[in-house]
Amino acid sequence: MSKAFFQSIESSPDNHRLPMADVLDNLSFNEQGLIAVIAQDVDTRTVLMQAWMNREALDKTLQAGRMIYWSRSRSCFWEKGATSGNIQALVSMTIDCDGDVILCQVEQTGPACHTGRPNCFYLEVEHNQQQVRVIGNQA
Amino acid sequence: MSKAFFQSIESSPDNHRLPMADVLDNLSFNEQGLIAVIAQDVDTRTVLMQAWMNREALDKTLQAGRMIYWSRSRSCFWEKGATSGNIQALVSMTIDCDGDVILCQVEQTGPACHTGRPNCFYLEVEHNQQQVRVIGNQA
Repeated sequence: MSKAFFQSIESSPDNHRLPMADVLDNLSFNEQGLIAVIAQDVDTRTVLMQAWMNREALDKTLQAGRMIYWSRSRSCFWEKGATSGNIQALVSMTIDCDGDVILCQVEQTGPACHTGRPNCFYLEVEHNQQQVRVIGNQA
Repeated sequence: MSKAFFQSIESSPDNHRLPMADVLDNLSFNEQGLIAVIAQDVDTRTVLMQAWMNREALDKTLQAGRMIYWSRSRSCFWEKGATSGNIQALVSMTIDCDGDVILCQVEQTGPACHTGRPNCFYLEVEHNQQQVRVIGNQA
């Protein structure tokens, strides 16, 4: 059980090393075989986007050193920037305590969002006004 | 269709306002009625964790001004810090271009991770060494 695996390593001290295959084999992929992946700009620390990878996309990303997601809408690998040129170079990758989320530090070329905005989170909730405000075009 | 809704507002200029209910009603909740929520420390910009909310948890979070998730393992609301005291005060909330991810800026009290680490992403993939290294205890 993957949850049991991650529970078993919780108390490991800093710099303890585990075989990579052991960890990746125990990741919690969902019913569609996917795991959530957050891309954060390593320089600005802006959260750029969240997308999904299957195990093969994860392996491809680590091999290539750039972000290769799985497109749920198109059911195919989605190499970020392959057509737009707005690639995401992988700088580092961390996995969370439950083994069901991956956080990647990336160097983003151009805008991360398909709308042309620098990141995907361009709708700000203004709860007190019961409104949502568009932001990010002039970032 | 929620995707059509988010496509229809893509070209809105900065500071354009939409009724909050229109946006929230069109969010893409998954088959379990959940949406992914990323919590980022508003001061350090560290990505603390990713968890899930249903629509009611989202409303509760906005009302309370602190993060109230939906626990998938326990099938109940999970007010972050309710037992540990390690609450997350909500500072701002943004929604992504597809309406299927929420990013919250929070003020984190104490460690965010149930392991006692400051954030949940404590397993760093060292691809060249085919290892995963434990980090974050002394952050």
